[in-house]
Formats: sequence, structure tokens, C-alpha cells
Amino acid sequence: MSKKNHQELQDKFGENLRKIRDQKGLSLRAVAANCDLDDSNISKIENGKLNIQLSTIIELGKGLGIDPRDLLNF
Amino acid sequence: MSKKNHQELQDKFGENLRKIRDQKGLSLRAVAANCDLDDSNISKIENGKLNIQLSTIIELGKGLGIDPRDLLNF
Repeated sequence: MSKKNHQELQDKFGENLRKIRDQKGLSLRAVAANCDLDDSNISKIENGKLNIQLSTIIELGKGLGIDPRDLLNF
Repeated sequence: MSKKNHQELQDKFGENLRKIRDQKGLSLRAVAANCDLDDSNISKIENGKLNIQLSTIIELGKGLGIDPRDLLNF
């Protein structure tokens, strides 16, 4: 996968993450409180600035209280 | 996420990947031919030996011809 596509993927993942978080009315802190990620990293992910690993997806699912597969709905 | 949990996650992802590939009757080479991953890396992933990134999940979805969310069905 090219660097450009890789960044596009991270951007789309981040936008979808923020959309889900907003829909659930959760702050970055609230999500961070429910998983092993801190709020600054979650913010970086939302802005496409952090490499997304499988463990990140699973932790975000816990933090948001959703099925992690919903994070790939983009 | 602890190192142990991280490894467990990778092992489960790999087992699920192999199960899907077997069900579809695809060889490692056949999957590799349809995406940006080579067969040796796909084999490492199946054996829990490679760190899984978002781009890996998307590429495996292409290689298997499935919805990438199915790769998180474990």
C-alpha cells in the first residue's frame, strides 16, 4: 500500500472514529477512561496522525463501548 | 494492553485468518496475488508472528475478497 493510500486510510479511520464518538456524546477523556489509550493519542488517531494497530482498534472498541468492527465502517 | 494480551490478540487474528483462507480454499500465494502483502508475511500473520496494522487488515480483505470487518470476527 502506497504512503498516500496509507495516510488516506488513517484519515478516514480517524474521521469515522470522531463521528462515532460525537454520536455517543463521549469526550476524549471519557473514552480514554474506558481503555488502555490516553486522550492525546486518541486525538492524534482522530487526526490521522497515529499508526493504527489491531490492538488500537480493539482498545477503541472498549473505550467507546462498541463492536470494534464498527470502527472499520468507512 | 499487556504484551501477553497483545500476543493473544495476534494469535486469534491469525487463527481466524487461516480459517477464512481455508474455507475459501485459497493458497497463501493466491491471497498474496490479490493484495500488497507477500505470502511469507501472510504466513507469519497466520502464526501470530507479525504486528497487525490497519493497512494489513484492509489488504488481507482485498486478498481474500471479503469485507475486512470479517477478519475481526474472533
